Amino acid sequence: MSNKQILLASRPNGWVEPGNFKLHETDVPEPAKGEMLLQTVYMSVDPYMRGRMNDAKSYVPPFQIGEPLQAGVVAKVIKSNGGKFPEGAYVTGMGLWANYMTTNGAGFQPVDPKLAPLSYYLGILGMPGMTAYVGLKGVAGLKEGEQLFVSAASGAVGQVVGQIGKNMGCHVAGSAGSDDKVAYLKDDLGFDAAFNYKTEDVHKAVRAANPDGIDVYFENVGGPILEAAINNLNFNSRVALCGLISAYNSTLDDMPAGPRNLFVLVGRSVKMQGFIVSNYPELCKEWIGVGAGWLKEGKLKYRESVAEGIENAPQAFIDVLKGNNFGKQVVKLSDA
Amino acid sequence: MSNKQILLASRPNGWVEPGNFKLHETDVPEPAKGEMLLQTVYMSVDPYMRGRMNDAKSYVPPFQIGEPLQAGVVAKVIKSNGGKFPEGAYVTGMGLWANYMTTNGAGFQPVDPKLAPLSYYLGILGMPGMTAYVGLKGVAGLKEGEQLFVSAASGAVGQVVGQIGKNMGCHVAGSAGSDDKVAYLKDDLGFDAAFNYKTEDVHKAVRAANPDGIDVYFENVGGPILEAAINNLNFNSRVALCGLISAYNSTLDDMPAGPRNLFVLVGRSVKMQGFIVSNYPELCKEWIGVGAGWLKEGKLKYRESVAEGIENAPQAFIDVLKGNNFGKQVVKLSDA
Repeated sequence: MSNKQILLASRPNGWVEPGNFKLHETDVPEPAKGEMLLQTVYMSVDPYMRGRMNDAKSYVPPFQIGEPLQAGVVAKVIKSNGGKFPEGAYVTGMGLWANYMTTNGAGFQPVDPKLAPLSYYLGILGMPGMTAYVGLKGVAGLKEGEQLFVSAASGAVGQVVGQIGKNMGCHVAGSAGSDDKVAYLKDDLGFDAAFNYKTEDVHKAVRAANPDGIDVYFENVGGPILEAAINNLNFNSRVALCGLISAYNSTLDDMPAGPRNLFVLVGRSVKMQGFIVSNYPELCKEWIGVGAGWLKEGKLKYRESVAEGIENAPQAFIDVLKGNNFGKQVVKLSDA
Repeated sequence: MSNKQILLASRPNGWVEPGNFKLHETDVPEPAKGEMLLQTVYMSVDPYMRGRMNDAKSYVPPFQIGEPLQAGVVAKVIKSNGGKFPEGAYVTGMGLWANYMTTNGAGFQPVDPKLAPLSYYLGILGMPGMTAYVGLKGVAGLKEGEQLFVSAASGAVGQVVGQIGKNMGCHVAGSAGSDDKVAYLKDDLGFDAAFNYKTEDVHKAVRAANPDGIDVYFENVGGPILEAAINNLNFNSRVALCGLISAYNSTLDDMPAGPRNLFVLVGRSVKMQGFIVSNYPELCKEWIGVGAGWLKEGKLKYRESVAEGIENAPQAFIDVLKGNNFGKQVVKLSDA
């Protein structure tokens, strides 16, 4: 039995490439006293990981060259040497791009495989779902019936943002990067309006999709959509800055220009706030209850892309950064 | 006795020019029943007026072509036809670029010429001072001992921002557009650091002036200073967006690029908020008491530029937009 890991081979300069990763095969580690051996069932690939590939000061330390990258995982406890969780338990937490790892269980939580499929704990009931809830409730203060716009709307976070908005009686509009995704937003998720930002004039499309302006903009993308959204912000509106994926793969030299119309924020008393989901632990806990309840009632739908095998994790991550995936991207490493 | 007014002759396209204004001479108006005749003592010229010269939706309606422009004024009631204030009273409110006007007194407040010089009610005790207080207290939530950075620091608002910061025990840094202004900030107002953004490398200068980063950035300018300030923001910092004067005179075609580094706001959980001082009436009232008290105790200094005569109001306004003035710019129209 061997343990496959993905190491960071080199830091990307601009777009991430397969050569930035290295597959490494090693022995399955033995849990020390007080530790457990985890077998990864699913691992998550998320846009924020791009930032950790740089050697830059941020809210989480950078990945280290020659070491396995980290990822949110759902894993099974297959051996316990007096560890926190029993053998056979399923847990979620920050793990490694690896089939196996040992841990004392710090930062891991048990998950209930009967409440929802295991992969959901990396998506709609995990960090992306919590991010949607925190951004709308804790940061933007979305109110019933407001006008909500979300970019990357079919993504892991965006699809939850839009559905929370619909469940709160809001007018919900979204942008996505293919006609299939736009159809999914309108036909399956009940968005009031959606458009393909790759084929439409973004300024016209944002205006048409938000006929009564925007009270809350949930921002995942940046670039021209941000500028267009700012032009349509209402008085006292809020921008929840979740991510700016359009800039993640830029070098300092080719960084895209920022929005030229920030002065709109002054005259319309707009609040634009960046946030990190882990700073809102109470709301995160609250979301698991709210989200699981809505899933059970059929008030939440969820779409994910599943890649198979750790060898395919780097490409799955690159697909997320390029917008090639559809829904929340996870990688399946073993059967539950 | 005649009444000189300045009318809006045409809307500027880009920079404001003298030809956008027209001097108009007319009769002194008679106050109707319930009205008063005001003689303007001082009128204010402020950057926000540039926005009102455009025909654009904003929080205040645009100036109308062929009509006198509006301005904050301090005026004397020289005739009352059963009006709200007695003859001889001094009042402040939104008046006209004119020597005389009639009003029923709506929106005007009496001012006390013994508490402070009359012109101060257009500056440190008026809208600019209130803007500083509202931005720091109501928007940014500045706390004792924090790291404060302000752009246009010797201007009407900036000089008050910095002194409030010093009175709260903060580390205060500022940028200004001449060596004289920088010397004034450091030597007279007690700023901990200040630099000339026209002659120094802005990115290096912002970093050097804020060695422990920035907890609160009070933004009056936009452009490269905003981008540099963002790079130096601390975790959980706040940006009070008061104005972005660098963009006010741009046309849609030559609008300067926005900050390329807004992603910093995500990872450092930054709040950037635009505001309008008139939305915080309680804090405005509070400032008059706090500011007058500090002036009396010598804990606030104040610098203004006084132009003489209504004929010179357009040039005084253009000087403010170009940064040629030093301190708060007012125009004196008559003796008190």
